[in-house]
Amino acid sequence: VTAPALSFVDRLRAEGLARYHHMHPFNVRMHAGALRAEEIRCWVANRYYYQTRIPIKDALIVAKAEDRAFRQAWIRRIHDHDDAGGGLDLWCRLGEAVGIPPDELVSCRRVLPGVRAACDAYVELVARVSLVEAVASSLTEAFAPDLMRERILAWEEHYPWVDARALDYFRVRVGRARRDADEALRFVVAGARTRELEDRCVAALVEKTSILWRLLDCVEEASA
Amino acid sequence: VTAPALSFVDRLRAEGLARYHHMHPFNVRMHAGALRAEEIRCWVANRYYYQTRIPIKDALIVAKAEDRAFRQAWIRRIHDHDDAGGGLDLWCRLGEAVGIPPDELVSCRRVLPGVRAACDAYVELVARVSLVEAVASSLTEAFAPDLMRERILAWEEHYPWVDARALDYFRVRVGRARRDADEALRFVVAGARTRELEDRCVAALVEKTSILWRLLDCVEEASA
Repeated sequence: VTAPALSFVDRLRAEGLARYHHMHPFNVRMHAGALRAEEIRCWVANRYYYQTRIPIKDALIVAKAEDRAFRQAWIRRIHDHDDAGGGLDLWCRLGEAVGIPPDELVSCRRVLPGVRAACDAYVELVARVSLVEAVASSLTEAFAPDLMRERILAWEEHYPWVDARALDYFRVRVGRARRDADEALRFVVAGARTRELEDRCVAALVEKTSILWRLLDCVEEASA
Repeated sequence: VTAPALSFVDRLRAEGLARYHHMHPFNVRMHAGALRAEEIRCWVANRYYYQTRIPIKDALIVAKAEDRAFRQAWIRRIHDHDDAGGGLDLWCRLGEAVGIPPDELVSCRRVLPGVRAACDAYVELVARVSLVEAVASSLTEAFAPDLMRERILAWEEHYPWVDARALDYFRVRVGRARRDADEALRFVVAGARTRELEDRCVAALVEKTSILWRLLDCVEEASA
């Protein structure tokens, strides 16, 4: 008796979720309220570098797209992060609320070499692979809404010294991540037309999860 | 007695303008009213492929930019071409006015291999070089407003069978090209801080002019 083969969508979900950073010890400690303020600051400062890579990798994805309608849809993600009041501004507000002045956050002085390498590897992954694989690597977004909702509750409960209004980045991502993931999944399912391409999409998503995981490994190690 | 050294801006202008495609025999014949309708169609169909490369090379430029304000400014160029009523739509309208159905234009069936190679080489140039060189390669825009104004007058006079309203692409580019070129020139002058970098910017602009020139070479050869 062999188990029935998983559908492509199920494989993406299973392989992605099994490695998603919600289970990383540092994230588990964060949501359990076990982080010291300095550990929170270290994470916010380091994750900021990841945030700065998002518009860059999204511009690379736009540049890979021959289809104008795809570009018109995907360019919205660059605006979501770069525009006034967007993701980068909201992350700066989070930084201020945890005690990192905007100048210091934006300077990336506190970004650990390993975090920088992991985030740069994400940009390199997107630059290297085909459009459908690059989009597949973004599918960690499918798991983000649950993580964001959990995080908002955990921070409100365990870190009352952080102004709750500064959690708007997480609040905004709940809706946007779902919308972005649904759009990306439709594209990947339509575009991955062979088993080999499906495998490469799963591999791109797995590589992306390992990048997010490494980021937390570095932050964990630095605060140990 | 040696001639005084040209300033960087003067070098960009001199080296760029000396090679700009306004002097290409095909363009000279176009503006003199000497092209047959089929030659006009061949040019419009082939130049369309160049137009499709613009949002792609601009997304690559956005992806090279660490500065969020730069990205916010440059992303407008992608919208200028991709958005409804933007450059690609206006080129389709031009295509219809010269007798190329939109489906045929967009299919790129009539694009000559040499034209495709030249336009792809532009994208590869932008992908390969540094941000300041990539921006320098866009400085052919500085010469576009004069060419566009001349072209509108020439087409209205010599090709009355083309609906004058279909020349809106050229009309729109007069103002946008000047704005884009001014913005790009400020960035290149501020960013090219060494003589070596200045030389590389001039070289990128020269390479770009050779790409535009090759496009017309191919169209000229095909219609001979």
